[in-house]
Amino acid sequence: MAKDDTAMVIFQPSARRGMVKKGLTLIEASREIGVDIEALCGEKKVCGKCKVRIEEGYFEKFNIESKRSHVSEWQEEEDKFIKGGEKEQGYRLGCVAKVLDDVLVFVPEESRAGKQVVSKAARDIPIQHNPAVKAYCVEVVPPTFEEPRGDFERIQDELTREYGLKDLRVDIFCLREIPTALREQDWKVTVFVWMDREVIRVLPGKVERYYGLAVDVGTTTVAGYFCDLSTMQVLNTRSLMNPQCKYGEDVMARITYHMMNEDGLEKMSNDIIEGLNTIIDDVIAGTHPPKKRKKKKTEEDEDLDALSEEAREGAAEEEDPAKYPCLSREDIVDFTIVFNTAMHHILLKLNPEFVGLAPFPPVVHKSLDIKARDLGIQINRSAYIHVLPNEAGFVGADNVGVLIAEEPYKKDEIALLIDIGTNGELVLGNRHKMISSSCATGPALEGAQLSYGMRAAPGAVERIEIDPETHEVNYKVIGHEAWSKYAEKKKLKTKGICGSGILDVLAELYRSGVIDKAGRFSKNQKSNRYRVNPENKQPEFVIAWADETSINRDVVITQKDIRQIQLAKGALYSGCKLMMRRMGIDNLDAIKIAGAFGTHVDRTKALVMGLFPDCEIEKIHSVGNAAGDGARCALLNREKRVEANWVSRNVEYVELTVEKDFQQQFMEAMQIPHMKDSFPHLENIVAPEILHQK
Amino acid sequence: MAKDDTAMVIFQPSARRGMVKKGLTLIEASREIGVDIEALCGEKKVCGKCKVRIEEGYFEKFNIESKRSHVSEWQEEEDKFIKGGEKEQGYRLGCVAKVLDDVLVFVPEESRAGKQVVSKAARDIPIQHNPAVKAYCVEVVPPTFEEPRGDFERIQDELTREYGLKDLRVDIFCLREIPTALREQDWKVTVFVWMDREVIRVLPGKVERYYGLAVDVGTTTVAGYFCDLSTMQVLNTRSLMNPQCKYGEDVMARITYHMMNEDGLEKMSNDIIEGLNTIIDDVIAGTHPPKKRKKKKTEEDEDLDALSEEAREGAAEEEDPAKYPCLSREDIVDFTIVFNTAMHHILLKLNPEFVGLAPFPPVVHKSLDIKARDLGIQINRSAYIHVLPNEAGFVGADNVGVLIAEEPYKKDEIALLIDIGTNGELVLGNRHKMISSSCATGPALEGAQLSYGMRAAPGAVERIEIDPETHEVNYKVIGHEAWSKYAEKKKLKTKGICGSGILDVLAELYRSGVIDKAGRFSKNQKSNRYRVNPENKQPEFVIAWADETSINRDVVITQKDIRQIQLAKGALYSGCKLMMRRMGIDNLDAIKIAGAFGTHVDRTKALVMGLFPDCEIEKIHSVGNAAGDGARCALLNREKRVEANWVSRNVEYVELTVEKDFQQQFMEAMQIPHMKDSFPHLENIVAPEILHQK
Repeated sequence: MAKDDTAMVIFQPSARRGMVKKGLTLIEASREIGVDIEALCGEKKVCGKCKVRIEEGYFEKFNIESKRSHVSEWQEEEDKFIKGGEKEQGYRLGCVAKVLDDVLVFVPEESRAGKQVVSKAARDIPIQHNPAVKAYCVEVVPPTFEEPRGDFERIQDELTREYGLKDLRVDIFCLREIPTALREQDWKVTVFVWMDREVIRVLPGKVERYYGLAVDVGTTTVAGYFCDLSTMQVLNTRSLMNPQCKYGEDVMARITYHMMNEDGLEKMSNDIIEGLNTIIDDVIAGTHPPKKRKKKKTEEDEDLDALSEEAREGAAEEEDPAKYPCLSREDIVDFTIVFNTAMHHILLKLNPEFVGLAPFPPVVHKSLDIKARDLGIQINRSAYIHVLPNEAGFVGADNVGVLIAEEPYKKDEIALLIDIGTNGELVLGNRHKMISSSCATGPALEGAQLSYGMRAAPGAVERIEIDPETHEVNYKVIGHEAWSKYAEKKKLKTKGICGSGILDVLAELYRSGVIDKAGRFSKNQKSNRYRVNPENKQPEFVIAWADETSINRDVVITQKDIRQIQLAKGALYSGCKLMMRRMGIDNLDAIKIAGAFGTHVDRTKALVMGLFPDCEIEKIHSVGNAAGDGARCALLNREKRVEANWVSRNVEYVELTVEKDFQQQFMEAMQIPHMKDSFPHLENIVAPEILHQK
Repeated sequence: MAKDDTAMVIFQPSARRGMVKKGLTLIEASREIGVDIEALCGEKKVCGKCKVRIEEGYFEKFNIESKRSHVSEWQEEEDKFIKGGEKEQGYRLGCVAKVLDDVLVFVPEESRAGKQVVSKAARDIPIQHNPAVKAYCVEVVPPTFEEPRGDFERIQDELTREYGLKDLRVDIFCLREIPTALREQDWKVTVFVWMDREVIRVLPGKVERYYGLAVDVGTTTVAGYFCDLSTMQVLNTRSLMNPQCKYGEDVMARITYHMMNEDGLEKMSNDIIEGLNTIIDDVIAGTHPPKKRKKKKTEEDEDLDALSEEAREGAAEEEDPAKYPCLSREDIVDFTIVFNTAMHHILLKLNPEFVGLAPFPPVVHKSLDIKARDLGIQINRSAYIHVLPNEAGFVGADNVGVLIAEEPYKKDEIALLIDIGTNGELVLGNRHKMISSSCATGPALEGAQLSYGMRAAPGAVERIEIDPETHEVNYKVIGHEAWSKYAEKKKLKTKGICGSGILDVLAELYRSGVIDKAGRFSKNQKSNRYRVNPENKQPEFVIAWADETSINRDVVITQKDIRQIQLAKGALYSGCKLMMRRMGIDNLDAIKIAGAFGTHVDRTKALVMGLFPDCEIEKIHSVGNAAGDGARCALLNREKRVEANWVSRNVEYVELTVEKDFQQQFMEAMQIPHMKDSFPHLENIVAPEILHQK
């Protein structure tokens, strides 16, 4: 039961929920619960962007009916934005309507500031300890009339004598700390030196632990790995929706936003910088005693805890407040960052216009070391942000990150590396030759932009079976062992379909004959699960009925959803095949799938569906967020930075869209499954009637 | 005659004057005329710091009597600050009283924000052309699908091919300009490279001229030399009172101000940075057509024009608007700076506390390259400020500047370099060994802090003769050929005594018996020019009677003034002698005097007065503002920066105050003349009765 002064608020379609204090506006509640509602005007009630719909229904758990009266009264300001019968449908402005009791709120597509956050946990990969920033403790003799050397020279000379560090530069902001630091603990200091070249921090006494942050800025998701640079431990992992999502879902949309708005680049850059500062604040707050933490624990957090195996392993490594001191932003002395080329340009305020136009030249390839203060990133002012190098216009530093984490250029086996994010990036080769390319998969394989797509969290359909005779559905949701057929469906709290489930759904729809090879709904439908939606006139198939879900709506997959997945898989498969043709090879020794998608995908089904070319099943591996791992490698081992620059210039980028049969290859690859090619490795695993059905 | 809407305002004791619009407040008028009146509260009428006295008298030129009614009526706000009979004496607040007609205003010591500005012209010294920033014009091929390299790599590769420049860094702010610059003039750009290491600017097309600024920040005066880096020409020279003067006259006062005020360092640093930005604005404005210049031409400007020969030579080189384009701050791409160690620390916001405490260790010796933006210096954002190295706590980068301009370390002759500013800095030696020291001369030898001291400008007494029989005075002022004895005195417009005249006055006072060997006024006075001032009870001697001057006041020299000069000369002479003793030498091959003082001093009189040890007269040279010249050398020739770091570590600093007979040496050296030592080179020049008088 809700306490008297709090109420349960559930947001749709994300189905996030939480207890909030009564009296908060819906926008304030959404912020507490972690739902992103557009609020351009800063809640001044003048932009009308935060329109939401108060839905009828009830809360299963509490059995209390949600009524419109559970929010505060209609206000005059709303008249201007909510018109034409919308008021009757329950629309309100999120910045006006206040929570008075439990309420279910539907956030329409146009009011969503972003999509769900995919948590990206840190993998346990072997990294040699050789950080770019190192700490040296020195003790110097105080000045005398005979020997009145300057404070800095006193330190420099000792660093030369003890550690062979010569001709060090010193950052001006750091230089200002030196006189006091030297005299605070009797001429003993710890000196932090960047790349054996520049003194960036001096602290009194002996300091052993120091910290860095490795960041992967995706088009949709931003992940930060907070590391102890002395022990290499990942102390904390934080993920965030890329705040730029409100300017457009994909990179082209954001480049367009820049071209259409004079301050577009500035705004998008500032937003992502602010996002990074939020991550910094979060990991710093994580080192302080829990009582000081303000953020309310929501179901979201519980979901995150319950995530993947990797995440659980990561969580085990999280900070122990007793062991680590309370830190400040100044304690973060190094920072590495990877992103695709467009995100790279936008964050650095480099004109992204030309990287979006053929032949897509980036402004710069090589890695950059930029003072944190020059980008407004709030770590130690004297610290550098190490920006990893770009390979090409559509293969960015994130791909370089994957490469230095996986090191295919050190191996004999010919591997195909697939990084499926909002764009697909591909690298093929071995120590003799490497080529890269990109393909426009879009975010469908991550579950985004689908009607009931959601991240891999409890309540998400991850497996499905469709009876070919009856078209009845049996599904499994994350968080429950039992399939729906054997469960009390209501208890599964089904909310949507996650990225890895999408492929399963598509495979079953095809296998059971609900859709045909071309992805169209068959004429011969056997159940009432198939219908044409009266509102949008689209055919759709019901996966879970409203009364089986926790959101009280039918979870469906639409014709448009199927097309999105087909486009994604077609782009990916044809990209892989064209690259193999370029390399002159027919077989792959290994496939490595980076990104959250790879973590959850059923390798066999992916092969069956023709997501990528044939390969021995055992040689198909998920490598998690390898881009982020690469950023972490570069944070903890400076040799990796050299390697990154080398590899970025030695992977040959091939532009597949200029191949003369690109279009034909792509169209063919959209078919389900792609049967033009042979899959020798599948013959032993998959029943021939599935593999060879017409 | 004053026009109806303007009025003549004269400020005392500086005697600056100008026509201003009626209705301006006295503060506003002072600003137009270039007189610095303290105005802490920003003219909000709440601090009372801008108290001035409206003086009786008449303006010779117009023969109009100046009356108190020539300023606006008394205001209530003034009651709070002007009390105890001050109102009756004519005191007003400068921010309240408005100019209604011609008026003579006396600015009391406590209301003066600073002292007069000494113009420091650039000397013609030979410098090899090898600036730290160089411009390279390159043309690159546009990107294609076959060759889609990044914009920066395209430039980098061409710089490598044509000029052998490898592995260049690029400043982030500069990188942002590249895509547009490349595409504006058909893939042809001019690239500005710092130290063959970093690209700091890229402009479209071919750009030949580019600019830099060399700055000498003295305790009292700041001088900037605006140079064309492509031709090495000095385009403009600008001087400015150090705005920090309001916090204290000398370095110790400013260090104390820092220690007494939490925000003291911040304030003093910001003030000098603002001063530098004023110089930058001035030289930039100088490249724009005259009609755009706002500043009113005052007598001050005319004075500056009429200054020294060097200044005139400098002026001849000033910009020709037809020849040079209108520039912006961004066009200044390099900046070198010298200063004494305390000014160095304060400008860079380095704690100056310890440099003021024995054994006076500075925070840093070595040169620094700091991004202009990190110091708030408003030149090109990507440009560096090159801070020359410090030698020791009291021998700063300005002395290093003198050294690299004069290069005594390349010669066989043993030279003594004397830089007389607010502090005296001494270097002695040749290519075998160099030692340096400092002595506390104070600013007296520059004419500062004396009752009627002023800069070397028209109206300043520069020569004097006193009749030993009658003690009558015959003097010569700058701007007039005839001595006062043969001139209509009124026309000389005498105002005060300049630095170089001070020594002449002292010599004559002694030769004629007005003062004795110890600097005390003799008991046997022969004229009414000697008197005890009824107000301050100090003995004084009148150089020019009020009715001979343009300021309508007696120009006098007081006992306190004489003491100041004695302290200065004593510090200097004993410093030189102690250094010679340290070096184990008795004779000097050459003496070089840097600073404005050296430009005007009579070498013979200086020797007679015992300002420095004996030396062949022909081998005593003024080297002008050699510190500023050194900054200019480092601006135009990067090898000089290496040389500066080398010399700063290879000149041995000796602390003279710890010599056990320092006090005795100093006391003896205060005597006039210092006859304990022999002056063989003077024997042939100066009459024995002068040289050997008892």
